[in-house]
Amino acid sequence: MTANSSSRKIDIYDTTLRDGSQGEGISFSVEDKVKIAKRLDAFGVDYIEGGWPGSNPKDIEFFDRMKSIPLKHAKLAAFGSTRRPTTTAETDPMLQQLLDAQTPVITFVGKSWDFHVTEALRIPLETNLEMIADTTRYLKSKGKEVIYDAEHFFDGYKRNPEYTSKCVAAALDAGCDVVALCDTNGGTLPNEISKIVSEIGARFPYGKFAIHTHNDAECGVANSLAAIEVGAIQVQGTINGLGERTGNANLTSIVPSLGLKLGYTLSCMPRMKELAELSNFIDEIANVPPKTWAAYVGRSAFAHKAGLHVDAMRKNSETYEHIDPILVGNERRILVSEHSGASTILEKVQRDNSDLRKDSPETKEILKQVARLEHEGYSFEGAEASFELLVKKATGNYRSLFELTGYRVIVERRGGDKEAITEATVKLRVNDQEVLTVAEGDGPVNALDSALRKALAEHYPDLADIRLTDFKVRVVNAKEGAAAKVRAIVDSADSSDTWSTIGVSTNIIDASWHALVDSIEYGLLRESARAGE
Amino acid sequence: MTANSSSRKIDIYDTTLRDGSQGEGISFSVEDKVKIAKRLDAFGVDYIEGGWPGSNPKDIEFFDRMKSIPLKHAKLAAFGSTRRPTTTAETDPMLQQLLDAQTPVITFVGKSWDFHVTEALRIPLETNLEMIADTTRYLKSKGKEVIYDAEHFFDGYKRNPEYTSKCVAAALDAGCDVVALCDTNGGTLPNEISKIVSEIGARFPYGKFAIHTHNDAECGVANSLAAIEVGAIQVQGTINGLGERTGNANLTSIVPSLGLKLGYTLSCMPRMKELAELSNFIDEIANVPPKTWAAYVGRSAFAHKAGLHVDAMRKNSETYEHIDPILVGNERRILVSEHSGASTILEKVQRDNSDLRKDSPETKEILKQVARLEHEGYSFEGAEASFELLVKKATGNYRSLFELTGYRVIVERRGGDKEAITEATVKLRVNDQEVLTVAEGDGPVNALDSALRKALAEHYPDLADIRLTDFKVRVVNAKEGAAAKVRAIVDSADSSDTWSTIGVSTNIIDASWHALVDSIEYGLLRESARAGE
Repeated sequence: MTANSSSRKIDIYDTTLRDGSQGEGISFSVEDKVKIAKRLDAFGVDYIEGGWPGSNPKDIEFFDRMKSIPLKHAKLAAFGSTRRPTTTAETDPMLQQLLDAQTPVITFVGKSWDFHVTEALRIPLETNLEMIADTTRYLKSKGKEVIYDAEHFFDGYKRNPEYTSKCVAAALDAGCDVVALCDTNGGTLPNEISKIVSEIGARFPYGKFAIHTHNDAECGVANSLAAIEVGAIQVQGTINGLGERTGNANLTSIVPSLGLKLGYTLSCMPRMKELAELSNFIDEIANVPPKTWAAYVGRSAFAHKAGLHVDAMRKNSETYEHIDPILVGNERRILVSEHSGASTILEKVQRDNSDLRKDSPETKEILKQVARLEHEGYSFEGAEASFELLVKKATGNYRSLFELTGYRVIVERRGGDKEAITEATVKLRVNDQEVLTVAEGDGPVNALDSALRKALAEHYPDLADIRLTDFKVRVVNAKEGAAAKVRAIVDSADSSDTWSTIGVSTNIIDASWHALVDSIEYGLLRESARAGE
Repeated sequence: MTANSSSRKIDIYDTTLRDGSQGEGISFSVEDKVKIAKRLDAFGVDYIEGGWPGSNPKDIEFFDRMKSIPLKHAKLAAFGSTRRPTTTAETDPMLQQLLDAQTPVITFVGKSWDFHVTEALRIPLETNLEMIADTTRYLKSKGKEVIYDAEHFFDGYKRNPEYTSKCVAAALDAGCDVVALCDTNGGTLPNEISKIVSEIGARFPYGKFAIHTHNDAECGVANSLAAIEVGAIQVQGTINGLGERTGNANLTSIVPSLGLKLGYTLSCMPRMKELAELSNFIDEIANVPPKTWAAYVGRSAFAHKAGLHVDAMRKNSETYEHIDPILVGNERRILVSEHSGASTILEKVQRDNSDLRKDSPETKEILKQVARLEHEGYSFEGAEASFELLVKKATGNYRSLFELTGYRVIVERRGGDKEAITEATVKLRVNDQEVLTVAEGDGPVNALDSALRKALAEHYPDLADIRLTDFKVRVVNAKEGAAAKVRAIVDSADSSDTWSTIGVSTNIIDASWHALVDSIEYGLLRESARAGE
């Protein structure tokens, strides 16, 4: 196997749990970390870097927990650093903590830029080389697979390639399995990565280098690919590119490019169809809003808007999409928008109503209604659930779950500095009963949501499973100031799915109310359809 | 000048207004588009693609508006396509609409992948070449600078390089100024881009190629850089990478890499320090939450978690950051410190209060308040008027015009199909008089605005000159659904100026109320200061 063999195996080294957790606002509990580790293992990554056991009690607990949880494929790695300048590896307490984690792999970070050795550590250059070699030798003597993360490798190499190469040699000569070339500051560009990885690769036997990049110049993915193309055998990164500053190299993009486009062999290849799900799972646990525009896995990644293309695309989708979305567990979406013609809408309608034709009266009715609503300021591209309700109504597949009689919202603030209080009243008929409920809330939408739930809870216990996840508002025709039309989008979720609904009105409360009602109605119809299956 | 000269000029071609507006959920009003065009021009981009005049009335109106708005540097481009197969260029109505836009530059898209010619257009391959040549010749005869966007260039070239090259030759032989090599499906990887752009470049004289990429493999930026490194002279992209699916190539990352790292000459180089501000401005208008992790311009791009590195970093920040954040108008943030951004705030405060020092008690008070409010979800970037009011209050330059006692808003809908009615009551003291007013409105903000104006009109006749022009709402912490915090921004204008104010609350009405009150107070203080001048 050589660097030029394009089907060679690339190891995926996931550091979501360690470097990924450095991202601003991200904090995983021990329970989260265990869940993520299991999931990464199931997906087929080769290495899971779980944390730095010496740096905090949470990571020590995580490694303890993992001692009784067998992984099917992945090797667990504990992360630390070289021994201190003034100790030996044998007596360094931090290295002892790494060994106590009882992982098959230990990754340690060490300097490789002369400037950082002399200015940050303030030790002789030679001492740093000894620290790298000694740390490697000791960990190898304990039977570990050892990876040296060469910190600031690229910045160091650009200034003093000889010294940086000596650091690499110190590790490899001492028996280090892999040296990870780290673009710690993240600003190196792909051409430089290619050149430098080629040069360093030529000095050592094949199969010794990993690439570890960050996204500071928005080239984290390309930099990883560049290094692999010139011989790196392992790529370190995080799911969804989570990480400090602009994030780490995004495995969610790197993995499909390596496996589906460049033909490398990956352990996770059989599970590639679970990539989008894995991405959502990590965002969900990290409590980060999903990046809808993310490559491969984002909700918009295969969303098509332009009306012109849709006809042609139906015939030959592979010529309008860089990959088949199914390969990564994503799906094609045809967006209904001001640009979309009848064919786009028809395509969407036919997915659930295969018997409808272009000239069916129901289709015409749908087209008419969409045109009218879009003219009023509706936009169904971000609110597919509202669109589906509209189609259900036009095709006679709709069954009303409740009948709204009215609502009232009062927001009141007494005294300039006191908090405003909000009260919502909802009146509706459900199963031939009139229900009147009232609720307070943090704001009008929250209060209306609470009152509506109160009114329906008894009749539709499934409602407990449905929750609001996001709420967005924008002014549609901005020129008229406060009297302009407002578009409210409500995102909801149950245990298995998410959906979005829309309401438009000159009144922000009324717009929200429409979106809210659609959201709950859609969710309940869905649950009852599922129950009836 | 050759492809190998690394200081050669690269033209920045911005298509935020055209391709960027294809992004899911993005919709610019004509007013938005004019504002953005002016701002892009001020920043120093070389080309501004304004829209497709034939595709919708909004774009026609935009180009009409731009006829009376001179640009300082940028050339405006109208976007369209080749003439139809069955017409001549002279008689094609779409090309006539392009000419009617009266822009110095016309960019037309045309097929360059044989498959799309025969399968989507269903015309002979030769006819497509004629369409490209004829369209070019006609537009050149009208004195236009002409750019041919070679659609699916890379996918086409990979299958049939000869035919794709013929398309390019058809345009260039007919006098086309630049051919944009489009990675329309967005999934090409950097190595392929390098190889193909090198090959096509070798067939034609230097200086004829632009690169147009999308981010479907998260390589949009790297692909643009790769093409430029092998000779492309123009890069097409959008601010913040807005665009269909995963977005267009992100100019906000490409521009600083070209100018600050690779040493190319750029017209916008003198304004590079305004890059972060430009990025925020576009997100604000597009009503898209800013990507905090964005390369170069994101709020977290230079955020360092406190600890080991921070001390060392203060001494030698350039060894811990890939560039100095000041170069792109961003700033370093040490995450443990509550006083992030102190220097920026100080700079802003000193603009109007030149006597204030860093250690003045007023400055400390302002910093403390800003930190507290930002923690609550305020963001003064888009609301300078609210910031100025805060400074006035802290420096004793504030004079209260009225004292709020309270308000109440009632929104009520009786009967499922009836329109909701809104009533707002406002109670305040002005010039020692208690005033209680009530007004109806199209929505709560409109009603509150009317009631507030009614209460103040008699005492402040200047108010008649102040009007609300826009109103935006965003959820700040999205994960908690309807109970999340809401940020309301109100834009106002009088006869000579515009300003923006902000309010934050869990309650959408209360957030709007704060922004509204600030807006009117700021406007009145301004008018009275002007009268006193």
